[in-house]
Amino acid sequence: MRKDKISNAVIRRLPRYCRNLEALRRDGVERISSSALGRNMGLTASQIRQDLSCFGEFGQQGYGYNVESLYQEIREILGMHRQRGAILVGVGNLGRALMRNFDFASSGFDLQAAFDIQPEVIGREIHGVTVRDAAGMEEYLEAHDVAVAVLTVPQQHAQRVTDRLVACGIRGIWNFTNFDVEVPEEHADVVVESIHFSDSLQVLSYLIRDNA
Amino acid sequence: MRKDKISNAVIRRLPRYCRNLEALRRDGVERISSSALGRNMGLTASQIRQDLSCFGEFGQQGYGYNVESLYQEIREILGMHRQRGAILVGVGNLGRALMRNFDFASSGFDLQAAFDIQPEVIGREIHGVTVRDAAGMEEYLEAHDVAVAVLTVPQQHAQRVTDRLVACGIRGIWNFTNFDVEVPEEHADVVVESIHFSDSLQVLSYLIRDNA
Repeated sequence: MRKDKISNAVIRRLPRYCRNLEALRRDGVERISSSALGRNMGLTASQIRQDLSCFGEFGQQGYGYNVESLYQEIREILGMHRQRGAILVGVGNLGRALMRNFDFASSGFDLQAAFDIQPEVIGREIHGVTVRDAAGMEEYLEAHDVAVAVLTVPQQHAQRVTDRLVACGIRGIWNFTNFDVEVPEEHADVVVESIHFSDSLQVLSYLIRDNA
Repeated sequence: MRKDKISNAVIRRLPRYCRNLEALRRDGVERISSSALGRNMGLTASQIRQDLSCFGEFGQQGYGYNVESLYQEIREILGMHRQRGAILVGVGNLGRALMRNFDFASSGFDLQAAFDIQPEVIGREIHGVTVRDAAGMEEYLEAHDVAVAVLTVPQQHAQRVTDRLVACGIRGIWNFTNFDVEVPEEHADVVVESIHFSDSLQVLSYLIRDNA
């Protein structure tokens, strides 16, 4: 019952649904109305119903949503129940921060390996993951089932590393380089999801512009 | 000529306009049509015209946009031409990564100080910024003009630190804790801009779901 074309805005709200439902679940809430869920998320009841109707029939008139089953359904829609392979490329400060502190498993990924070109970091183990020589990246990807690469290399290497990853059949690139990497047309199905820190700070800058 | 209520989606596109115009400018492009700018940004010409009309009269029929002046106008709209004070709270891996590698100045902020509670990091200087004892945060904020706090503390401290910052009159919180911090109603004008790493990875997970 999933619609073919779901808007980007709805997709980007799914993780927020997930976080909200997780909090409700933790608090022992068993069911919730669309209006109460809407209040938690800053949306109207009808937006909630419309969002969720993209993925199937979840709520019941007069009952609302079962928190546990909606939570599990959304996790499944997002693919969080699987553990897909991931690698990280570029073990600088940010790469290390992600390796040490980010919970890949709870988002449905298994961080299997990291790659760098600096001799002083190659061979080190960080939070149970070995840092390998980036020269062997192609060989590694050939031998392992890796869906996603986390890109934390310096900006000037971003496109070249992307090209190598795409050529190896990577399916998704999680891009932290603040550089808009491009995938060639013949690999248009490769998904690039970028976290642009500066975009976020500039939005904050805009929003505090007038207050005080 | 700025409209009172500009949609969140338009505001979130402004930094992307900025990045695109900066690239055009670097390439020596002097003017661009709304359709060409739209192609760069994955938008239609009429979306471009609509977005920009929220902020004033920029283009000229038959001429398009002057790249340099549109770039400068958008930087000004975003407040990037100022250098507002910022502090960073929580000098762990991620905090350090931001201090060392993130270019605050080019987004309009001057990172003035960092705070932590760990004796081994207090007093250190990272990329020209001194790490201070978090116990002195209130006193520092009292004495300095700080608009924004970058929140990179562990999740369990996120709300408590937010409460302290808000009580000191901070105007914006750039939240990296993956925790939805709340500001009390009497300080509803404080802006919280969160970068939820896991939301972004889950969207990526969704988008690669079907493409084998």
